[in-house]
Amino acid sequence: MYSYNKCQEIIEKRISEIKFSNFPGELYQPVQYILSIGGKRLRPCLALIACNMFSESPELALDAAIGIEIFHNFTLLHDDIMDNAPVRRNHETVHVKWNNNTAILSGDAMMIIAYDFIARSPKGSFPEVFKIFNKTALEVCEGQQYDMNFEKQNNVSEKEYIEMIRLKTSVLLSASLAIGGVIAKTSQENISKLYELGENIGLAFQVQDDFLDVFASSSKFGKSLGGDILSNKKTYLLISALNSKNSKLVAELNYWIRKTSFDTQEKINSVTAIFEQMQIKTKTEELIEYYFAKGTECLKQISVEDKRKEILFDLINKTKKREY
Amino acid sequence: MYSYNKCQEIIEKRISEIKFSNFPGELYQPVQYILSIGGKRLRPCLALIACNMFSESPELALDAAIGIEIFHNFTLLHDDIMDNAPVRRNHETVHVKWNNNTAILSGDAMMIIAYDFIARSPKGSFPEVFKIFNKTALEVCEGQQYDMNFEKQNNVSEKEYIEMIRLKTSVLLSASLAIGGVIAKTSQENISKLYELGENIGLAFQVQDDFLDVFASSSKFGKSLGGDILSNKKTYLLISALNSKNSKLVAELNYWIRKTSFDTQEKINSVTAIFEQMQIKTKTEELIEYYFAKGTECLKQISVEDKRKEILFDLINKTKKREY
Repeated sequence: MYSYNKCQEIIEKRISEIKFSNFPGELYQPVQYILSIGGKRLRPCLALIACNMFSESPELALDAAIGIEIFHNFTLLHDDIMDNAPVRRNHETVHVKWNNNTAILSGDAMMIIAYDFIARSPKGSFPEVFKIFNKTALEVCEGQQYDMNFEKQNNVSEKEYIEMIRLKTSVLLSASLAIGGVIAKTSQENISKLYELGENIGLAFQVQDDFLDVFASSSKFGKSLGGDILSNKKTYLLISALNSKNSKLVAELNYWIRKTSFDTQEKINSVTAIFEQMQIKTKTEELIEYYFAKGTECLKQISVEDKRKEILFDLINKTKKREY
Repeated sequence: MYSYNKCQEIIEKRISEIKFSNFPGELYQPVQYILSIGGKRLRPCLALIACNMFSESPELALDAAIGIEIFHNFTLLHDDIMDNAPVRRNHETVHVKWNNNTAILSGDAMMIIAYDFIARSPKGSFPEVFKIFNKTALEVCEGQQYDMNFEKQNNVSEKEYIEMIRLKTSVLLSASLAIGGVIAKTSQENISKLYELGENIGLAFQVQDDFLDVFASSSKFGKSLGGDILSNKKTYLLISALNSKNSKLVAELNYWIRKTSFDTQEKINSVTAIFEQMQIKTKTEELIEYYFAKGTECLKQISVEDKRKEILFDLINKTKKREY
């Protein structure tokens, strides 16, 4: 079976081989730029790994995997405009390096190119692959919309937040795994379990992201801690805290949220202390653990020899232990 | 056979029946808004009409036709952001009524929904329909990119301009006709002729648009004349004029282009006079006539009884005679 690294290698190679038209350069250069600055290629790797669980020809899923990766990168292009983000993967974002119009239009082109790759799936699997992909693509848009809404909205519940990150992040991981399974022609039951596995690991990962921004050991965490606190980002921690029944601590939290001038370290320390007093730290750790356990359970329930599950078990364990 | 009006009625009905999710409303309300403010539904009507030329079941092409219309409206949403356009079909554009982010994301959702409808094409035709649609969708993006480039670029040739409008406008008309033919299972030759017909009529229509903005009889032309002249829009007329060998008149034209303060009617009259002195008016009329004739020739060459071509002949003739 192919290791994660081997899958990543195959993906990188295939991406580097894509021949984009040279004209108009303004349209295709940003596409090549965003695809060349990499990332972990998690989604296409998941598609290959899932396919390889049931088939000796994981490459059957390669074009669909590339389609998913291009779609993912399209969402980054457009999300970065909407979120006004200047940096992505340590590089300037497309709308900064070029401009908003370029990022809009090149993103549009990427979505079309993504469909082109999806359509190169093996004939028998294509209708099902297309169905999963299309449903997921729309859900990802819904997730982004909820994310933007929540930043302006008071009273977001934990449940709503979880549903938002499920749509914005998890379903594309789910779709990657499920599409790999579909192309390997495994059973509907296994495909459902793959899907559920992706959902749970995705949720675990996203909540863990929120957690690590506050509670990681800062030396290992790549960036400095507390960025989300400083920007009042609606993370799982903040939403849980705002929904706490301890009105004194909620008032204290709101004081820090509304304060426009502050010492950054003081704000981080104060808000972190509030989170701890509210038991948000423990609660969040338990939730992360819950999703990891649920995901692991799904993987266990998939009907295939245990040794074919090893790569995914490893991936879950590494993700669980990550400190950044 | 269904008349154009009958086709339009079927399209409107089907669009009004589409059930969009209610949540998140911020994502789907703009989609319903842009689809409800209408337009002539030219593209989906062409798909039904082409299908009906060879089949008694034009509704077979209905879902693909709707997909094309949704795709077309998606391009309007994004183009209107890029072009900073405040009004579309006498209504506020989405990015004005809501905001840029909404127009970006709702547009993205529309493209996905468009693919969903395309995928509902009859099974046997779907691969070919998808192929035509996908190729065309990317070409439309290329056309929009060239259009944006040309606004900032000196020395655009007439040939480049024609290629831009072919990509930006004609190919989607071509695709609509061709997809109708594919779904009706007509011959590859007929499909090619339908495609070519769309290209030529599309080119005729676009150049005619440029022409009418200057030379229409203003009472029939809905808007006031000369808007393109006032905004120095790179129309076929302006590009031809700038490429003229009459350097004295070109200098005069550039004087008006660079002038930042002017009496609007004086600028319109002066530039119009330059166009006439350069024989641009005649040249443009001849070009429009050339494309209409070429399109008509394609229609004649399609192998089907003449009476089944009547609706398209009528449509071409009405378009030819339009004065607005």
